[in-house]
Amino acid sequence: MTRARNMPPPIEEEWPAVCLVRPQMGENIGAVARVLLNFGLKSLRLVSPRDRWPNPKAEVVAVGADVVLKNAKVEWTLEDALSDATLVIAATARPRGLEKPVWSARETALNIRAALAQGERPVVMFGPEAAGMETEEIARADAILTLPVNPGFASLNLANAVAVFAFAYAEARQATELPSWFQSDSPPATQEELENLFLHLEQELEHGRFFHPMDKAPLMKRNLRSIFLRARLTQQEAQTMRGVIKALTIGRGGRKKDDPQD
Amino acid sequence: MTRARNMPPPIEEEWPAVCLVRPQMGENIGAVARVLLNFGLKSLRLVSPRDRWPNPKAEVVAVGADVVLKNAKVEWTLEDALSDATLVIAATARPRGLEKPVWSARETALNIRAALAQGERPVVMFGPEAAGMETEEIARADAILTLPVNPGFASLNLANAVAVFAFAYAEARQATELPSWFQSDSPPATQEELENLFLHLEQELEHGRFFHPMDKAPLMKRNLRSIFLRARLTQQEAQTMRGVIKALTIGRGGRKKDDPQD
Repeated sequence: MTRARNMPPPIEEEWPAVCLVRPQMGENIGAVARVLLNFGLKSLRLVSPRDRWPNPKAEVVAVGADVVLKNAKVEWTLEDALSDATLVIAATARPRGLEKPVWSARETALNIRAALAQGERPVVMFGPEAAGMETEEIARADAILTLPVNPGFASLNLANAVAVFAFAYAEARQATELPSWFQSDSPPATQEELENLFLHLEQELEHGRFFHPMDKAPLMKRNLRSIFLRARLTQQEAQTMRGVIKALTIGRGGRKKDDPQD
Repeated sequence: MTRARNMPPPIEEEWPAVCLVRPQMGENIGAVARVLLNFGLKSLRLVSPRDRWPNPKAEVVAVGADVVLKNAKVEWTLEDALSDATLVIAATARPRGLEKPVWSARETALNIRAALAQGERPVVMFGPEAAGMETEEIARADAILTLPVNPGFASLNLANAVAVFAFAYAEARQATELPSWFQSDSPPATQEELENLFLHLEQELEHGRFFHPMDKAPLMKRNLRSIFLRARLTQQEAQTMRGVIKALTIGRGGRKKDDPQD
């Protein structure tokens, strides 16, 4: 085995990935695969597809893009599907009650290009056909991709929504000037590292009875997560924050043994 | 009947129209209707759809956009479908051997907005699923809309291609600055007026044995048409050109009786 063989594939081939959250119809998954490849994208992730996988209906509609389906990464949870991502964008209507940057398709595409140049691993996620994503799912995103749809008839077909993003991304490939982006010498934290940070923080806050009234806890947690997501922590900073929490909680007694795993 | 009642609907409601040339699958026609309405467009034209019309499969897929299907204008020939258009854009790969401006989706959308502001009636046409448009069909266009597709896998699903245009158009609605456009105090010639001019010119040229060798005639005619299409004639200029042809041919004998109809 040569060293070259062990090298990971070039980052521009694998990223950005498109992640379909709980997709329902195989035909739509196939149509998404086709339009991704039409615009030169290859990485597809599926979270808990409704029907069995592999899905023959998807293969029929994908036409010549079966390679995208074959290489699709299928996970049961969104958490697993996003674990290695460092930049997550949710394609959805402007969400209520979540403080996130809202980007057009063009801004999303240019920001992804700029992020790739910094070594990030971006994922764009799209919700299921009928209901769209849950607020908790959208809350995982660093930013929102919103399309200028007719407010009276806003529900886009899944493949059409992906088509617009993939087109904007293909156009951005040709762009010569990229927006200035998060500058750092240290690699960005992955979703998994952030998730561990959040769990650690939330556990310690629960111990300190921070979340009251109890029914407000999910909202309070979401708002806390939003703050750290917006800060775009590096790996180093996520580690530092873990240390901060440990330092703040040490000596409260009885908690040090059950720190969440790293 | 009040005067207001007799007023035509505002021009921005009816234009641009999207024209599907020889579409095959009803599902695709329905998906096009849906995505048009998603992005606030309403005018659909169908040239010689393969299956019967109305098509129940189209209605199922259109979901809540049946109004777009119900109001779709169905014609047997592309000539009829474009007769009232003053600006025709063909969505296709960059054509060989046709001298036409080539526009991105964004340029197409901005040029359409600018053209509407000048009272033009723009139509964007999309070819059938498998084979695309014939060269003779593309030759009718003033400009080409080309998308940045993967050359190794370029064939877009019909509704996805329309989705990208409709999205770009919805974005252009929000644009504050429009490109400078064909300026004239006189209304632009319609496709029907141009067609009559071309037929008149071609008939007279045939009489003068202009087209030889015979097998080159279609190409020579197409190139001639391209010149006048690029010139973006006004109605007045199209009339003037008819007069020019008459003036040039008068006295050649035997032709004045069978001028093509106006």
